[in-house]
Amino acid sequence: MNGRPPPPSPPYRRLSVEERRRQIIAAAQGLFARNAPEDVSLEDVAAAAGVSRPLVYRYFPGGKQQLYEAALSAAAERLERCFEIPERGPLSARMAEVLDRYLAFVDQHAEGFTALLKGGSVVETSRTTATVDRVRRVAADHVLRHLRQPSPSPWLLLTVRTWLSVVEAASLIWLDEGRQWPPDRLRDWLLDQLMGDLVVTAGRDRPTARMLRPVNALEPRGGRRDRLIGRTLALFVTWRLRPRA
Amino acid sequence: MNGRPPPPSPPYRRLSVEERRRQIIAAAQGLFARNAPEDVSLEDVAAAAGVSRPLVYRYFPGGKQQLYEAALSAAAERLERCFEIPERGPLSARMAEVLDRYLAFVDQHAEGFTALLKGGSVVETSRTTATVDRVRRVAADHVLRHLRQPSPSPWLLLTVRTWLSVVEAASLIWLDEGRQWPPDRLRDWLLDQLMGDLVVTAGRDRPTARMLRPVNALEPRGGRRDRLIGRTLALFVTWRLRPRA
Repeated sequence: MNGRPPPPSPPYRRLSVEERRRQIIAAAQGLFARNAPEDVSLEDVAAAAGVSRPLVYRYFPGGKQQLYEAALSAAAERLERCFEIPERGPLSARMAEVLDRYLAFVDQHAEGFTALLKGGSVVETSRTTATVDRVRRVAADHVLRHLRQPSPSPWLLLTVRTWLSVVEAASLIWLDEGRQWPPDRLRDWLLDQLMGDLVVTAGRDRPTARMLRPVNALEPRGGRRDRLIGRTLALFVTWRLRPRA
Repeated sequence: MNGRPPPPSPPYRRLSVEERRRQIIAAAQGLFARNAPEDVSLEDVAAAAGVSRPLVYRYFPGGKQQLYEAALSAAAERLERCFEIPERGPLSARMAEVLDRYLAFVDQHAEGFTALLKGGSVVETSRTTATVDRVRRVAADHVLRHLRQPSPSPWLLLTVRTWLSVVEAASLIWLDEGRQWPPDRLRDWLLDQLMGDLVVTAGRDRPTARMLRPVNALEPRGGRRDRLIGRTLALFVTWRLRPRA
């Protein structure tokens, strides 16, 4: 990003230490969200925050790496809040809302999200990896809370954690391929995959089957779950009735 | 790994340049498979290969990083070959074989597999990331070949790629939690997930539904697919017949 004129600075005003810190992190977050980390310089952050480069250094003596980690932590907290929704209504509707928020976040932080999760980034350290791991753990805890399973069976836990890896991989592919679907189609597919994954696990694991009973009772007749069941039964019928090849 | 006596060296014999190179890589591969990269030194590699440290340097002037990358490439090729199985018989049986080989590889390369895929490793570079990406791409191509879909619909491609991320995430969790299931139980669950994911996608995507018809015709009556369908139908029936909460 060097060589380009800095964006117009907001008018300078006296801020408290904490306000100033937050302002610099917010500026860094915006830049790291929309650019790969190697394309963001301290000058860019200073210009975006409307402060001098030495001031950025005073707050972040560790330079770009420290700023990146601070911006990443702030982004991770925002991402974790995507999963914080009220525990009422059908699970499918709750998870639809979670996924809408998640995909909006991914969309707004496309470059940063991709650089972070693709690995091999210049700013990747055991600390950034730990932050990513924490988000994954918090996300899994939230999903389990919505399933009312604070102590899930190992198979249910595996299902939730691997489904989150599907969400992550699908988001990366979606960005990589130029967002070829509107986010709500991707959200619907991800929701169907979650319901399908839970059903498949329930077929092998009694605790998961038991857990699904009350969750199921909240799904409205003719809603998402029933439409998925309808589509699935239609496929089963086609296959069963076809003559063998 | 310093401080321990080196393992007994195999008797020294004259090898061609290529043989010697392969021997050193094989020794490095064994060490990097069972240890985190930061715990492997050039001395360890030299001792395991039964050669001197300067000789290792002569073949790998880039030192440990170059050796790691060579060992990773060799491991990646072995991993890719797990997916190379004959294109005959039911898809579920083929994928069962692929998964058996894959999980055996993961089991044998536990430390290296975990260090590589967890991110933030000391030896992670854009080259190691590119190697991992290549394995993922090759694996997806092989699965699509077994599905007889060289030009898959975008949803089918997404399904295959995200299922592979489930395989990867589940393998990491399996290792991390001390291999709490025998590999064949994990393999069966992964296979069910693949079949479930394909059915869910087929319910929304006509090309995937069309693709599944010939694949289905190869599945034996009463086999894996029918048992999964049976378990799923049993769950559907339970839910539909239950009074609403």
